[in-house]
Amino acid sequence: MLGVLGGMGPLATVDFLAKLVAADVADTDQRHMPFVVRSVPQIPDRSRAIITGGESPLPALRQGMRALAEMGATVVAIPCNTAHHWADALSGPDLPPILHIVDAVADRLAEILPGGAPIAVLSTEGTRAARVYENRLDPRWPILDTVPAEAAAVAHGIALVKAGRIEAARAIFTDAVTAQRGRGAAAVVLACTEIPAAMPPGDGIVDATQALAERCVRWYRESFAGFAPAEPQAAYRAAS
Amino acid sequence: MLGVLGGMGPLATVDFLAKLVAADVADTDQRHMPFVVRSVPQIPDRSRAIITGGESPLPALRQGMRALAEMGATVVAIPCNTAHHWADALSGPDLPPILHIVDAVADRLAEILPGGAPIAVLSTEGTRAARVYENRLDPRWPILDTVPAEAAAVAHGIALVKAGRIEAARAIFTDAVTAQRGRGAAAVVLACTEIPAAMPPGDGIVDATQALAERCVRWYRESFAGFAPAEPQAAYRAAS
Repeated sequence: MLGVLGGMGPLATVDFLAKLVAADVADTDQRHMPFVVRSVPQIPDRSRAIITGGESPLPALRQGMRALAEMGATVVAIPCNTAHHWADALSGPDLPPILHIVDAVADRLAEILPGGAPIAVLSTEGTRAARVYENRLDPRWPILDTVPAEAAAVAHGIALVKAGRIEAARAIFTDAVTAQRGRGAAAVVLACTEIPAAMPPGDGIVDATQALAERCVRWYRESFAGFAPAEPQAAYRAAS
Repeated sequence: MLGVLGGMGPLATVDFLAKLVAADVADTDQRHMPFVVRSVPQIPDRSRAIITGGESPLPALRQGMRALAEMGATVVAIPCNTAHHWADALSGPDLPPILHIVDAVADRLAEILPGGAPIAVLSTEGTRAARVYENRLDPRWPILDTVPAEAAAVAHGIALVKAGRIEAARAIFTDAVTAQRGRGAAAVVLACTEIPAAMPPGDGIVDATQALAERCVRWYRESFAGFAPAEPQAAYRAAS
């Protein structure tokens, strides 16, 4: 069963779950994929920990992973790009494997830019400083440098989403996408889960949250291809 | 910590969570209320169990309640009106108390119709047959009888939502609200969590899902008034 390590932030978690359920097309309740969610937002700020050496979120993240495992999660999705800085530290024999958000984005880029091309990544300062995308993404999609003033604007937009000020944030993100396209980005990755919560999809835009949701649905269908969605009771037993 | 017994259906669960996070206004992630969700939709159909004596969902519901308690839930919300038929059977010393959806609707009716008035309840056939609202709602809000053809149309609309056909469902629900108003309903309760997933709010419409979300936020603020949201770390310890 899928576990969702949420709360970073809560709105981004809900946006991910909405995309998960929408991607999981089924004609009755019983044929939808089961999942469990832990949204405990009292986790130290991820970007602050990376940039200024503030309190590490790792103990809280590990506690969340263990709680999900106890609830029956056999794989975990984390709808927070920055938290993936700790993905390797969160792997171990006692913890479920993570469906990595950068791998999900790579799957999507392979569809729209199979030959490779420069891309832009809109993210928190923490995701950028930790090189979450640079360290994992195939180099056929080189990531354009970020202009400091634009990066600061995006960070401000993310803070606005966390405070529920969606409209103000949307204007900032739209400007950032336009600027990156002007510098030659063939695709722009919305690589903070707060950004797509404020911004509609569009051509050449890769919503990392949407990519992760689709990756989760594929995982479910591949894992339970033998009996789900045709035999919901078997999926129930597997989820229990 | 709040537990959400979801999956009935998954889209209704996400609609509830979106309303919960929106009602829980906070300026940073860390000040949002923590919650855990179990969305395992492989639960026998609630209406079928009530109407035709099909397989009871009670064992699966009880399993879900116990799993939420093990995850730290000290109170549970169930974003499914029909499942509240089993609310009394789901109470016991080993299970967290349920924030009942009919009580949440009553709180809202007390605000908009404090003196009482006839109302209409749009629901599944199961909710109506089990008299979930009639058995619990204060009689100052008498519930108008339902016309069989309209009830069948609403049931069909609910099935359309579960299958993801939102637009088609919306037209059905809009017609039902108009008809009930024509027969003298001072308010119309959207008393199946699938209905508000397809229908926007409006004057004289009580969205049971929204009412339940607001009830949960009040519970959190009353329960943790001494230290939350001012001291997120205390809320974290309480949630852990």
